[in-house]
Amino acid sequence: MVSAAAAGQVTTARPDVALHAAVHAFYARQIHLLDHGDVDGFAATFTADGRFFHHPNGRLEPGRDNIATAMRGFLARAAAAGVVRHHWFGMFQIDPGADGTIVVTYYSLVSHTDAERKVTLEPTGVVQDVLVEVDGVLLNSSRTVKPDTLRLR
Amino acid sequence: MVSAAAAGQVTTARPDVALHAAVHAFYARQIHLLDHGDVDGFAATFTADGRFFHHPNGRLEPGRDNIATAMRGFLARAAAAGVVRHHWFGMFQIDPGADGTIVVTYYSLVSHTDAERKVTLEPTGVVQDVLVEVDGVLLNSSRTVKPDTLRLR
Amino acid sequence: MVSAAAAGQVTTARPDVALHAAVHAFYARQIHLLDHGDVDGFAATFTADGRFFHHPNGRLEPGRDNIATAMRGFLARAAAAGVVRHHWFGMFQIDPGADGTIVVTYYSLVSHTDAERKVTLEPTGVVQDVLVEVDGVLLNSSRTVKPDTLRLR
Repeated sequence: MVSAAAAGQVTTARPDVALHAAVHAFYARQIHLLDHGDVDGFAATFTADGRFFHHPNGRLEPGRDNIATAMRGFLARAAAAGVVRHHWFGMFQIDPGADGTIVVTYYSLVSHTDAERKVTLEPTGVVQDVLVEVDGVLLNSSRTVKPDTLRLR
Repeated sequence: MVSAAAAGQVTTARPDVALHAAVHAFYARQIHLLDHGDVDGFAATFTADGRFFHHPNGRLEPGRDNIATAMRGFLARAAAAGVVRHHWFGMFQIDPGADGTIVVTYYSLVSHTDAERKVTLEPTGVVQDVLVEVDGVLLNSSRTVKPDTLRLR
Repeated sequence: MVSAAAAGQVTTARPDVALHAAVHAFYARQIHLLDHGDVDGFAATFTADGRFFHHPNGRLEPGRDNIATAMRGFLARAAAAGVVRHHWFGMFQIDPGADGTIVVTYYSLVSHTDAERKVTLEPTGVVQDVLVEVDGVLLNSSRTVKPDTLRLR
């Protein structure tokens, strides 16, 4: 028999409403920066030693400059393909850790719109970030992207 | 003439921010459980007598075990089709009722990603849930799924 | 070198949680009204002199009646096409202004589901709204819709 105790339950008693609002604001701002081509602004939402892992492509060397460089290449390929890309992050599962870090696990959908008005979607994926608060500012300490196609091999 | 009074207005005076954050957290957690194959965890987000209606397929017998069994079959068919599915719930309209229940009406989009990186979408739908708070925990008392294709007949 | 100061940073110190919850509730309610054909209800979420700009189609004359009329034509064309449409607004960037207005910049995705269960997507876009609070109620003072296809010319 399935009991409630088995589930990852959501308590309503004291949800951290400030963290909820801050996390949603963080992702909206971060992804607007990327989708509008501000790779330096995007990189600056990471910590100075921020890490970025993309399965199975591998992990970047830590740091904002490496993240900015990788994103610049990424955006150049999209521009060459003649599409406007948007990242749709959603279903944010927010897990505050005992050490003050915040683990956020969410879904990622990326749309491509071309000049002929056709819209296609990149393979979906699940992203897991570790966020930290530095001087009252949320920053991305690490990002791990797992495309769903890896689950089909 | 259209007046403001005609609308379902949103007052800013005292929004229930705790409920807002809890409802969003509830759906993120619930749908991660389902999409990652934890049907028992998913079923446990329902009350012990939880009900699940899917138009026009019909209604399940109440209870977590029946919900878990139905979802297991559902996921097995997706696995047989060789796709990774994700549920994207969004545009949550949260209506607290006088009796302490919470009615949540939202949109549902389901993506399929296959091994060839192709992404397709299931017909969209509107879902209406009744949530209840049991010992400080949000649980799904009932779910009613209405695929949009029903509106086209 | 990319520094954190360059970014649009999100501070966690005092996020406006009431505004966050109210804005999300506002869009859910507004878009349910439109997608379910209540154009007068939709128009009533705008101020009496509400403005609606759609690039490159042009701007409507101000006011709820003009917005309702435009939306009625919009929905009639969708109905004639035999599809159910849903608006998926997301990645809300909320910027309170010094003058009490609230600027919300977000992504828009519109799905079409037809009777054969096929789902297609309209070209994505970015929308920028100015919201105001009138007697404790959030209203849309102006909406500016920029389809992404404009960025490809």
